[in-house]
Amino acid sequence: MRRLDARAADFEAGFAALLDARAPDETGVGAPVREILAAVRAEGDTALCRYTERFDRLALTPDALRVTPDEITQAYESTTPELLDALKLAAARIEAFHRAQLPSDLKYTDEAGLTLGMRWTALDSVGLYVPGGKAAYPSSVLMNALPAKVAGVARIAMCVPTPGGVLNPLVLAAARVAGVDEIYRVGGAQAVGALAYGTATIAGVDRIVGPGNAYVAEAKRQVFGHVGIDSIAGPSEVVVVADGSNDPYFTALDLLAQAEHDELAQAVLITDDAAFGDAVAAAVDDVLKTLPRAAIAGRSWADHGAVVIVSDWGQAASIVDRLAPEHLQVMTADPEGFAATVHHAGAIFMGRFCPEAVGDYVGGPNHVLPTSRTARFASGLSVFDFLKRTTTIAASEDALLRVGPAGVALARAEGLDAHALSLSARLDALGWNGG
Amino acid sequence: MRRLDARAADFEAGFAALLDARAPDETGVGAPVREILAAVRAEGDTALCRYTERFDRLALTPDALRVTPDEITQAYESTTPELLDALKLAAARIEAFHRAQLPSDLKYTDEAGLTLGMRWTALDSVGLYVPGGKAAYPSSVLMNALPAKVAGVARIAMCVPTPGGVLNPLVLAAARVAGVDEIYRVGGAQAVGALAYGTATIAGVDRIVGPGNAYVAEAKRQVFGHVGIDSIAGPSEVVVVADGSNDPYFTALDLLAQAEHDELAQAVLITDDAAFGDAVAAAVDDVLKTLPRAAIAGRSWADHGAVVIVSDWGQAASIVDRLAPEHLQVMTADPEGFAATVHHAGAIFMGRFCPEAVGDYVGGPNHVLPTSRTARFASGLSVFDFLKRTTTIAASEDALLRVGPAGVALARAEGLDAHALSLSARLDALGWNGG
Repeated sequence: MRRLDARAADFEAGFAALLDARAPDETGVGAPVREILAAVRAEGDTALCRYTERFDRLALTPDALRVTPDEITQAYESTTPELLDALKLAAARIEAFHRAQLPSDLKYTDEAGLTLGMRWTALDSVGLYVPGGKAAYPSSVLMNALPAKVAGVARIAMCVPTPGGVLNPLVLAAARVAGVDEIYRVGGAQAVGALAYGTATIAGVDRIVGPGNAYVAEAKRQVFGHVGIDSIAGPSEVVVVADGSNDPYFTALDLLAQAEHDELAQAVLITDDAAFGDAVAAAVDDVLKTLPRAAIAGRSWADHGAVVIVSDWGQAASIVDRLAPEHLQVMTADPEGFAATVHHAGAIFMGRFCPEAVGDYVGGPNHVLPTSRTARFASGLSVFDFLKRTTTIAASEDALLRVGPAGVALARAEGLDAHALSLSARLDALGWNGG
Repeated sequence: MRRLDARAADFEAGFAALLDARAPDETGVGAPVREILAAVRAEGDTALCRYTERFDRLALTPDALRVTPDEITQAYESTTPELLDALKLAAARIEAFHRAQLPSDLKYTDEAGLTLGMRWTALDSVGLYVPGGKAAYPSSVLMNALPAKVAGVARIAMCVPTPGGVLNPLVLAAARVAGVDEIYRVGGAQAVGALAYGTATIAGVDRIVGPGNAYVAEAKRQVFGHVGIDSIAGPSEVVVVADGSNDPYFTALDLLAQAEHDELAQAVLITDDAAFGDAVAAAVDDVLKTLPRAAIAGRSWADHGAVVIVSDWGQAASIVDRLAPEHLQVMTADPEGFAATVHHAGAIFMGRFCPEAVGDYVGGPNHVLPTSRTARFASGLSVFDFLKRTTTIAASEDALLRVGPAGVALARAEGLDAHALSLSARLDALGWNGG
């Protein structure tokens, strides 16, 4: 863990180290991913089964790729009532927030007489990639699937790797709660290839979303353009801005909740109270003695964690903007006021009783957020990921007479004569004398 | 040109050929682009100048990379008043439409007592790539720069290659009209590298937009994640849906306005009147005899053009959706009614006096649109490309008591103990007895 004092002369050097990319090593994945995608495109299910056997140690025939309704029902029915209720509460809250997020169409007639519009329509089909193994989280199934449902996507196909054939039953239960019943036990670049190009068993989709490992990220990059993709997810991070009135133990838990995700995760405390910073650091060390995922969380905290002391909240806000964190938790006397001064953050959690974990599960807003400083330009998953815009223009004869001549001038200047003629021929027919 | 009859038995075979990708050959650009990006990242301006000399036959020192204020002023003042007025009319209309497009923030307190929000903020900096040579269009400068301005982007850096040192003065005039004064005479993958990683002369940006050749597209793909990018633009297309009441000559011009862009462009007429289809095809041949860009337009029409005869407008709409065209022009008795039945199109132009060229210049909506069937999942350039969303959650103690227990249950089920503890420790402090 780094201790940085924003008032000190050597702050910039230490801060630069903190900003250093924590990107996983992706060198060398380009070529194997290209090979996998080409094989899936050419051979379809045969290649899918071959790679699933190789990478997931699971021998499958094409007819077993799809998870059966019985398997889903069995998983759903084996879920405890408490967990089912929790999944349903989370789903209802996520659905409500994303419904509030739905944008409105636009339509107006302007003073030139043109009627201009913009309308939103849902994608026909999307693919959800759900990581397997340690990161197969039912909450992520809800967070990925429900915005697509709310947007009105008719077909949602989910791919989840099942290393050794093991599939978290809660992932299936969450899929059932979210209304997703098309699920395939396939992962990695081969799953991305199947979703992008389609196979006999898995029909192609229009857009692929969801986080994955370096192979999945590279595969999404390579199929981009043929289908849409979401952001490439990197290791995640939290910045906690807290004054000395907070409970050091609570604050330590908030930092560790991020650190326990991944050794590359980053947890940063920014405070104006150096003694509080020390108390939180001591509490972190204390909790690490008993935390089940202490090996991961401890590594993350040691390598990428930091306590930054600032002279005031203005300085804190400017440091937050430079970190552009995925998660920002604000526990000061005026969290709303502080949040208003921040430009770059994926999601902001405000109040001493609003830890980031609220947003991971039951807050309502999406927990799939821009990581690794991409909040400078990217946004969390939303209904916008599953909608597209079509603009419309309607022009009457009079409207064309008003705006057409300028179009003719520009088209001629660009050397595009058919463009100019398509306007001027009509203007001429309307009695224009300008051309 | 293909003649297809949607009522005929062999329609699907002919239509499949029409759907065949018109993607430019990008094989083999991956490796050279990787090399260029690595060199720009390592050597900065030195590499920029080296590649500019190699690819654009232009020897430069770093201090000459940026276009000077004098050059911009000179270009602006050399523009005819007619063209300046046309640029200004176009700019005012583009600005007005994109201002209408600006989304609203969201904020509400729900029945559980959580205050949820979503706010939009502008990117700090964006890079605009403007193609050089034959495709250096001033209208595209307006279409790329003005949405960023309207969104509130503080810094806009434009890169445009100047092969042999030649720069279209209208491109500079359009930049002045759009309020862009940071312009660099550099193009290709090296420009994308400079915008993504920054050099001593060109500071890095957060997002890169604008179309380019295969090298530019591949470079954008490779820097994606480090910065944001827009869609990868492919060859463009128009579908004109017209009944027999239209003027065949006007309709032919509309098709050729697309065909004259690029030999890979695609122009398709869909009509319910076979005789009208023949008349339009004859008019196309006729116009091609005198059209200045007949070589390009003729090639496009011969290779990728089509006239499709349909039995009714319902059939036409389903064919449009399968083509998911960049541009859809509707000239029927009820264009609004027809447009409402279409799901996939970048932009729709309605009415017999609203050719697509209106939208290229003076309509107001953006002319940078999803090409090559990507309208299935992608949208035209807009203020949304220059904004990002931050979600917010504020919870009181009471609110945490209502939703927190479900979060604890889910966190425990996912094996994320610090997540669970960050909630349950607070709940315990509030007198919770559930954990």
